[in-house]
This record gives sequence, C-alpha cells and structure tokens, in this order.
Amino acid sequence: MSTPNQEDYLEAIWRLTQEKGYARVSDIAERLHISQASVSKMIRKLKEDGWLDVERYRGLALTEKGMAEGRQLLARHQILERFLLHLDIRENDVVEHDVEGIEHYFSTETLERLTALVAFIDNNPEWWNKFLQKTPPAPKA
Amino acid sequence: MSTPNQEDYLEAIWRLTQEKGYARVSDIAERLHISQASVSKMIRKLKEDGWLDVERYRGLALTEKGMAEGRQLLARHQILERFLLHLDIRENDVVEHDVEGIEHYFSTETLERLTALVAFIDNNPEWWNKFLQKTPPAPKA
Ligand SMILES: [Mn+2]
Ligand SMILES: [Mn+2]
Repeated sequence: MSTPNQEDYLEAIWRLTQEKGYARVSDIAERLHISQASVSKMIRKLKEDGWLDVERYRGLALTEKGMAEGRQLLARHQILERFLLHLDIRENDVVEHDVEGIEHYFSTETLERLTALVAFIDNNPEWWNKFLQKTPPAPKA
Repeated sequence: MSTPNQEDYLEAIWRLTQEKGYARVSDIAERLHISQASVSKMIRKLKEDGWLDVERYRGLALTEKGMAEGRQLLARHQILERFLLHLDIRENDVVEHDVEGIEHYFSTETLERLTALVAFIDNNPEWWNKFLQKTPPAPKA
C-alpha cells in the first residue's frame, strides 16, 4: 500500500476491532506499515470528523457511523479479493496489491454488479469452470 | 478524473495521435480537463523522461517507447471499459469514472486474466447471459 488514506484507516480499525476487540495506535501502524506518528495524526482527524469516539483504556472505538463505514469498506475489500481469486490470481501479494489499489475507485453501481457476479460464481462453479478451463492462467516461471 | 498522472497523459496523447494524427497542448488540456499551463509542465517532464520527441510543427510526437506505452495504456483502458459494459453498467459517466480511477492499479497478471475473461464473454454470449439473466441490474429510479 502507498500512503494509506482515510478509507484504509477505517477498514484497518474495523478489522482490528473485529479480530481483537480493540484497535491500538501501535496495531494500526503495524497493519498499515506506517509510523505511529502518522497514525496519531490521522486519528485526530478521524475523531474530528466523527468516525472515532474518545479513546477507551484499551484503544480506539469507532462511532456508529464509523462502524457502518468500516463494515462496508471491509466488505468491498473482500468482494474484490474474491473476484481476483476467482480469476485465478494465485499470488497473495498480487491480490493484495491490486485490491489495495483499486478498491477506492469503484462506484456503488459497479460494486453491486461485482458482488452479484461473485455470488453467481460461488453458486454456479461449473458455469465458471467453463471459463477457467478454456483460459487457464499462464504457468509461473 | 482527479489530477491526471503520467499514464493519463500518455494515453491521451496516444488517443489524439490516433484520432487526429497529432496532439497539441490545447487538445490535451481539453481532453484532460486541465489548464494548458499544467499540460506544458508535464510535457517537459515527459520529454525529459524520453516519452516525447521534440515538438513538430503540428504538435507533439511520441517516441517509440512512448507509442508502445500509449498503445498499452489505451488497451488497458478499453479492456476495463468492456468489462464494465459487460457487467451492464449503463451510464457512460459511471463507466468512465470507474475506469479512470482503477486503471492505474492493476498488475499485469490481473489485466491478463481480465483480458481473457472479456474475450471469453465476447465469444460466448449465451454463457454470459446466464449470469445477466439471473441477476439483472437494479432499474434506475
Ligand atoms: Mn483494503
Ligand atoms: Mn484512461
């Protein structure tokens, strides 16, 4: 990920909250591969904008609006990830790189259609296999 | 498009070269919705980096390397556009917005797989119709 933006923060905080019950500045910094100073700066902005509540003793708490947004951002990331896996992109680094790059730029319309496609692929694996069998990905060197 | 980057310039210059035989600063500015001053500044950088040759009397000329890159960038744009049209995104503004946003972030691997998918859809319309018929896009208000 290049410089993470507000969406990356909210997604990471939501992930940490789900996984550990709380999100600390140090966890966020580790997850986003940036300095704790950068995280603290963005945290102030997220509080000002109503995404985060006052700090609790174990870490940061998303507001209602912050949780709704975090949930949606994580769902978006996961749909794109599943789509790339269905395309048979096999290297995790490549999937991660592409999803982190493209996820911020999709309209609601396109995301809805991609969500429908991923669900249709999941429910109709033989249908999707017709594509996969005809166009196998190039073998890795 | 937000601030166009180097890839957007090379794509636009290649498009203009294909359409009109040449690209002028004024055409590029119009195409990218920015000032001629911004274009002139980027043009200098593109020349320094070997993408553009000296100015000819009618406009700018891409170098060999610039043409190869422009051709590839336009192909990438068009593949993504065709994929979104296949998903049944019907508003041109939405397609344009999404493609302009996401196109800079795809790995070669993912683009190759998307290219294969778009070709497979083109060659197997009844196959793809199974998805479209089961999951029609929401009607517009
Ligand atoms: Mn993400
Ligand atoms: Mn483009």
